[in-house]
Amino acid sequence: MARAPNELTAVEALAAMASGQLSAVALTRACLERIEARDSVVHAFAYLDPALALAEARSRDERPAGSLNGLPFGVKDIIDTHDMPTAYGSAIHAGHRPGADAACVALAREAGAVMLGKTVSTEFALRHPGPTANPHNPAHTPGGSSSGSAAAVADFMVPIAFGTQTGGSIVRPASYCGVIGYKPSFNTINATGVKPLAASFDTVGLLARSVDDCALVAGVLAGVRRNTPLEAVKPARVGVWRTPAWRHAETATVRAVETAAQQLARNDVVVTDVELPPEFELFLDAQSDVLRFEAARVFAFERTRRAESLAPSSRDELAAGAAIPRHRYLEAQALLGRCRVIFAAAIAPFDVLLAASAPGEAPAGLGNTGEAMFNRWTSGLRVPCLNVPGFRGPNGLPVGVQLIAALDDDARLLRAAKWIAARIGDEA
Amino acid sequence: MARAPNELTAVEALAAMASGQLSAVALTRACLERIEARDSVVHAFAYLDPALALAEARSRDERPAGSLNGLPFGVKDIIDTHDMPTAYGSAIHAGHRPGADAACVALAREAGAVMLGKTVSTEFALRHPGPTANPHNPAHTPGGSSSGSAAAVADFMVPIAFGTQTGGSIVRPASYCGVIGYKPSFNTINATGVKPLAASFDTVGLLARSVDDCALVAGVLAGVRRNTPLEAVKPARVGVWRTPAWRHAETATVRAVETAAQQLARNDVVVTDVELPPEFELFLDAQSDVLRFEAARVFAFERTRRAESLAPSSRDELAAGAAIPRHRYLEAQALLGRCRVIFAAAIAPFDVLLAASAPGEAPAGLGNTGEAMFNRWTSGLRVPCLNVPGFRGPNGLPVGVQLIAALDDDARLLRAAKWIAARIGDEA
Repeated sequence: MARAPNELTAVEALAAMASGQLSAVALTRACLERIEARDSVVHAFAYLDPALALAEARSRDERPAGSLNGLPFGVKDIIDTHDMPTAYGSAIHAGHRPGADAACVALAREAGAVMLGKTVSTEFALRHPGPTANPHNPAHTPGGSSSGSAAAVADFMVPIAFGTQTGGSIVRPASYCGVIGYKPSFNTINATGVKPLAASFDTVGLLARSVDDCALVAGVLAGVRRNTPLEAVKPARVGVWRTPAWRHAETATVRAVETAAQQLARNDVVVTDVELPPEFELFLDAQSDVLRFEAARVFAFERTRRAESLAPSSRDELAAGAAIPRHRYLEAQALLGRCRVIFAAAIAPFDVLLAASAPGEAPAGLGNTGEAMFNRWTSGLRVPCLNVPGFRGPNGLPVGVQLIAALDDDARLLRAAKWIAARIGDEA
Repeated sequence: MARAPNELTAVEALAAMASGQLSAVALTRACLERIEARDSVVHAFAYLDPALALAEARSRDERPAGSLNGLPFGVKDIIDTHDMPTAYGSAIHAGHRPGADAACVALAREAGAVMLGKTVSTEFALRHPGPTANPHNPAHTPGGSSSGSAAAVADFMVPIAFGTQTGGSIVRPASYCGVIGYKPSFNTINATGVKPLAASFDTVGLLARSVDDCALVAGVLAGVRRNTPLEAVKPARVGVWRTPAWRHAETATVRAVETAAQQLARNDVVVTDVELPPEFELFLDAQSDVLRFEAARVFAFERTRRAESLAPSSRDELAAGAAIPRHRYLEAQALLGRCRVIFAAAIAPFDVLLAASAPGEAPAGLGNTGEAMFNRWTSGLRVPCLNVPGFRGPNGLPVGVQLIAALDDDARLLRAAKWIAARIGDEA
């Protein structure tokens, strides 16, 4: 192999292990060496126990367990693990030892995957950032809240990592770090053992370096029985959905979306614009009301008993949520419900929609993980979406575009994304 | 007061405390004395820390906190508490110390309520029972999975207790123990910190001795701003819904439902039968498929890493769930979705529906908590329901009837239930 083991995608690494060219121990060791070399700059990991990871890898080599046998994976630190501490990105829970692995972790391990370590999350997946830097330029944010998962995958520390998205916490960091970020349809990957933020939107997803990897791992976790290799399928029709947030798109994002649309059209895909009715002008406010109302209850203990240990931005957000009366929450939920019905009809003529993944490239500084106004649509609608990297901004940092499919139409999204990912991006 | 403090309802106790006739410490002490006297027979509590409860009561007397100030409450042991161990009814998690209170616990405490102790749950809210006995006859089951919460409230150990229902875990034990059991609409009380069983159905609710108590406490937890005293409202139209499970109704349940219907009719309520279309013949199988598929993932860690410490009935249930392929899960979810739409139309002409709460009175023996075929409808439909006690079976044990309202129409359910509860029941 020309590439180092830690540079392989998950599907490539699994094939190399199945054919005996690579052992789980060697792969895990390569990942750990990359982390050792780079994590003092990137700070992707919140917790690492190399001996534990290597022991798990060794047992996979000795007793192969399933379709992910020997595959190293990273776990966002808001996801419980029984043998590594889980602090939810918060000083309040520093050193906390959960009594069980989260469902996604236990299922990945049941299939033979090797847990490498815990990746940095913003505090409770809210806005307050951890120490993670963008591997493409450590003076820039990696995005958040799945900061460490996106950075670790981008920096070849691990082929795949769990993230979660409630607002924009998978697709935005994926765009900033130049990797695939896949937020499945709501309730595709069981969320047990993931610290909630707003249960109406919380979705477990994946950061990876190939669409195939997302399809493979999500299929195992979702309980798909016949998990055949992902086929690339050319979409017949793609809609370009700029959303009411389009005025926030910077030049780099505008150029990425328009270029991708032109590249698809040149490949004989029918590309047309999508406009949604006025309900969608109220959508982001409604999504915010629901998120904050629920978060104020999710973190009732921390808000009422540990407020002094919350970041000011978390405290403000939770206080804002506690001030929302129930009738406004129910009205916001009703609006989102209507928008889901409208969206289902609007997307029906298309295979997928093309949209912005983020306002632009990763902003400078580590104090702010960027804005989610291009992501909260899919979170509120509960539909699957995926960041396809391939473009660069004015500072040479990655810029991706977002593909979106109808609810529970993840298979179509992934097949189209595989086809599209090979055909869009900056031209040499 | 003629009655002992521990015999007061929550609303009565709060009024007595507000007027200075009763202190939080005196009320908590009365509850603890009742537990001391009776719990060697009833076994309602999984964990009790009298000193901690009294200290919390004392601080409520010194610094009143909110609208539930000084009110003792019990907490089902699948609900996290930061200062009392939470074992989820399982040997696997014996002595587990969660890092935070569940949302419902933190919100109740924020409003001034006093956590008395943890009540017995079946193992993971599945079928394997704990040691709790029915306070009306300790040779009979109290029902489950909220066994300890129902028994503690019925035996005047505490005015109100948290329960959860995924299949029939609130309304059935309420019927067996002769208390009010209120399962609100799905997502009324935030479920953060409650060990999931099947997130599509899991609902936090209340066991209490009056409808008013349920309305008061649920209102605080749900974030209702103007929480005015509950008004009893006569329903104009009540539908009798026997459900496709009616052949399982024993004589005592048939008599309770028919008597209640006649008593309503005598009070000039229009009472008519409700029939639902053939989709509902498939409903219970679909509800079971969804529950088991999700439970197999929720408990992936316990199933794959701690199987030897699971009760055989839990192990069987989780294995059955792991064998369900995803496409069958999605078909079952789709059927339940259609049934929710049908049900919303069917219930629209009625204020509430009247139904069975359980097949009959509590079965003999503590090895089995009874059957949920009259409860899984409302769990799958996500609609609010409430057990109204008032009847007795052949062994002199309680038998209740169930009232059901449309999704998020909890206010109507509670108002009608208050009116109905005063007008139905065995006649002297």
